[in-house]
Amino acid sequence: MSKKLTTRGEDYSKWYNDLVVNADLAENSAVRGCMVIKPYGYAIWEKMQAELDRMFKETGHQNAYFPLFVPKSLFEAEEKNAEGFAKECAIVTHYRLKTDPNNPAKLIVDPEAKLEEELIVRPTSEAIIWNTFKGWVQSYRDLPLLINQWANVVRWEMRTRLFLRTSEFLWQEGHTAHETRAEAVAEAEKMNKVYAEFVENFMAIPVIQGTKSENERFAGAEETYCIEALMQDGKALQAGTSHFLGQNFAKAFDVKFASKEGGLEYVWATSWGVSTRLIGALIMTHSDDQGLVLPPSLAPIQVVIVPIYRGEEQLAQISEVANDLAAKLKASGVSVKYDDRDTYKPGWKFAQYELQGVPVRIAIGPKDLEKGSVELARRDTLSKEIVMYAEVVDRVKDLMIEIQENLFEKARNFRDENITEVNTIEEFKEVLKSKGGFISAHWDGTSETELKIKDKTKATIRCIPMGGKKEEGKCVLTGNPSAQRVLFAKAY
Amino acid sequence: MSKKLTTRGEDYSKWYNDLVVNADLAENSAVRGCMVIKPYGYAIWEKMQAELDRMFKETGHQNAYFPLFVPKSLFEAEEKNAEGFAKECAIVTHYRLKTDPNNPAKLIVDPEAKLEEELIVRPTSEAIIWNTFKGWVQSYRDLPLLINQWANVVRWEMRTRLFLRTSEFLWQEGHTAHETRAEAVAEAEKMNKVYAEFVENFMAIPVIQGTKSENERFAGAEETYCIEALMQDGKALQAGTSHFLGQNFAKAFDVKFASKEGGLEYVWATSWGVSTRLIGALIMTHSDDQGLVLPPSLAPIQVVIVPIYRGEEQLAQISEVANDLAAKLKASGVSVKYDDRDTYKPGWKFAQYELQGVPVRIAIGPKDLEKGSVELARRDTLSKEIVMYAEVVDRVKDLMIEIQENLFEKARNFRDENITEVNTIEEFKEVLKSKGGFISAHWDGTSETELKIKDKTKATIRCIPMGGKKEEGKCVLTGNPSAQRVLFAKAY
Repeated sequence: MSKKLTTRGEDYSKWYNDLVVNADLAENSAVRGCMVIKPYGYAIWEKMQAELDRMFKETGHQNAYFPLFVPKSLFEAEEKNAEGFAKECAIVTHYRLKTDPNNPAKLIVDPEAKLEEELIVRPTSEAIIWNTFKGWVQSYRDLPLLINQWANVVRWEMRTRLFLRTSEFLWQEGHTAHETRAEAVAEAEKMNKVYAEFVENFMAIPVIQGTKSENERFAGAEETYCIEALMQDGKALQAGTSHFLGQNFAKAFDVKFASKEGGLEYVWATSWGVSTRLIGALIMTHSDDQGLVLPPSLAPIQVVIVPIYRGEEQLAQISEVANDLAAKLKASGVSVKYDDRDTYKPGWKFAQYELQGVPVRIAIGPKDLEKGSVELARRDTLSKEIVMYAEVVDRVKDLMIEIQENLFEKARNFRDENITEVNTIEEFKEVLKSKGGFISAHWDGTSETELKIKDKTKATIRCIPMGGKKEEGKCVLTGNPSAQRVLFAKAY
Repeated sequence: MSKKLTTRGEDYSKWYNDLVVNADLAENSAVRGCMVIKPYGYAIWEKMQAELDRMFKETGHQNAYFPLFVPKSLFEAEEKNAEGFAKECAIVTHYRLKTDPNNPAKLIVDPEAKLEEELIVRPTSEAIIWNTFKGWVQSYRDLPLLINQWANVVRWEMRTRLFLRTSEFLWQEGHTAHETRAEAVAEAEKMNKVYAEFVENFMAIPVIQGTKSENERFAGAEETYCIEALMQDGKALQAGTSHFLGQNFAKAFDVKFASKEGGLEYVWATSWGVSTRLIGALIMTHSDDQGLVLPPSLAPIQVVIVPIYRGEEQLAQISEVANDLAAKLKASGVSVKYDDRDTYKPGWKFAQYELQGVPVRIAIGPKDLEKGSVELARRDTLSKEIVMYAEVVDRVKDLMIEIQENLFEKARNFRDENITEVNTIEEFKEVLKSKGGFISAHWDGTSETELKIKDKTKATIRCIPMGGKKEEGKCVLTGNPSAQRVLFAKAY
């Protein structure tokens, strides 16, 4: 039999970890807090990268690559940013090892190879990029500068979880420079919208677009836009953020441009990023006790064909049909794997591909051959149907759309059912405890109140929804006036 | 006018650096020895990545991602490998900064956040990967394991040059595990051939395939296969390497498998890599005193259209033709840029696109409009021709092939003219001094002799050519018997 998962009901957190490991997505490494992304998990990331990269390029961005290291003097230039990341960064202090004089089989750090200035392994690249932008921007003709980087970053986390929070993770970080405040704000908003479209349409994860409260803002930003998703256990997950950085980095790194009017002005900045953390969101949005459930858009294998046979001759007959179907499916743009390995039984394969979330499974046995049909199983509903050969391609193509839509609808319904309006702090606590999810409540707009609520409930403001209806009310904690409800939740 | 290059004749090394910077490929960063790869340079790398990735997947490899850091105890496990890289690695010793008590605007390394075990920033990933493979390989059914990683690596180089030798660089590293020695050797040879095909067909750089002498072998390998290219200044450049690692890493990390016969055996390994260094080879193979020359296969822009006009009305007429041509070229798979910016003059644009190596330039002026023709200029030969509208698409498509082939032929002729057979050490020195290039000479097969020759001439054995004709002779230095000529050169 295939590896067994803990169920969500038994232990959600253990279910998640079992699933990541058993579905061959990732595993912990010998390096504290750093993961190995296994080929199947990485194939999902590649699909996500390709789509995001296409979207970034379509919106005028170009990729570039900046150094892994940030010299300490640059790192500390933008004070708030530095303060935000100082407590969790890996620091390179030496550039050479030497043989241990006490044990020739061992190496030690060579004390004579100490760096004059320590290097910080980038936790984010604003500092090194803005130091570079200084050389790239002289006049308004050089703007806007629309740059993206695909890279690894390191944030020394004390408590880590595969994909969700790891000391090293993979991400993209956009960094842009603009002539005006309005243009930079528009860019930050646009990229948050690009993220929302990507996550909803491609990953089938419904999100709420909004802005962060001051407490939750990116270190160094004037405004942080975000997309927030709700996981099955009622906790929120920040799926992407886009920051309007004002002129903070331009001032810290002295990046000015000659304007059309002949003046010399600081440029306006944005930065925005999503990471391998999204794979955690993907898992916790769609998967079930049988394992991973993947939306067809990002499934490395969209259809698996499993033969059910006794003996070589039957296998040969089935393979003829299977190979023909596989070729036709491929020709119509569907990715297919025909698993005719004789080292594993059909039952094992069924469980394995369920665990790995392959959207559609086609089984072909001797009875199917007689009837000219196949058995087609959907991973999302676990339902089965019999389909004649001639209809398989059309049916599968329809299913690719149906499954994608069904997963999104299901997740959206769950999310919508788990947004609860509350009007008192008692109700707040009660709902959070009994139901979880997003708590929609009035808030007086102060950091002080947010922190007090966090202290009492462990819930924070996940976002101030954009385009949320203006509704006057009173803060759940202080009773002070509020112009709009905001969404609180416990969060990953 | 556009930025001016030093010519190759004046100062080859300065020409190279000027070209990299002025063609907007890369620049030095604030981090010693680390470069910023600018959007135009990165676009070339993306093209290279896409093609290599396709070739790796076609030969059965899957991508995965392993940690950036290697704990010191793992790093030192394979002794030769550790010894080879110990002198040039960046070492993380701390995981937190704190406010400087003497200056609250500054940060210092927090001495209380010292790691128990230092982490090496990967100079190559054999150690961390083989430590992971231990968990992935139990039986022959788990083999072969064919993994590739796209990543950044760090080797603390004392003297760096953009693309050619930088402390951080981007690369791919393949790591495979096999049941038998023969299978691993075949894999290492196959991947060296994949590199040769990629570099010759896609980058139009002729290479010689061969193996390395013991001195030049990868630290920890039993055999290193390589592809060697010749630069315009007569120096050789190692363009890619593929290593047969024997059972060295399997033994160091105790990776065994249950064989079909029921035994427990160490697996056999390979690793292979190419890096952003290839962009340096690209530049130094094809470029000229006007700037970069790009083979069409990897040119981010294959055709640029420049309008030559006075006044809005003329521009509108030209733009109509240009946009139509651009659309037709795009539809036939050619990447086109129509540069109608009015902030730069045509002469500036001509020089700029020559500097950036765009393979074909189309100029359209008022006289062309009258005749229904365009002026088409080739970057490789700098020749021009007049082409009628209706023939532009076909002519450009032909040129994409012609230019690619011409660049390869030209480089191959240069390379072949610069392989010189010598039979005495005096001749060796004389040819190396007067002409450079590859020196084909007999060698007695000992490291000692190679080192003596290196000491006398600064030339090393670049490779022992594969399939080179067996020709008995006497070592140029010692007069001892030799069965085959090998290629010496000064190298990048």
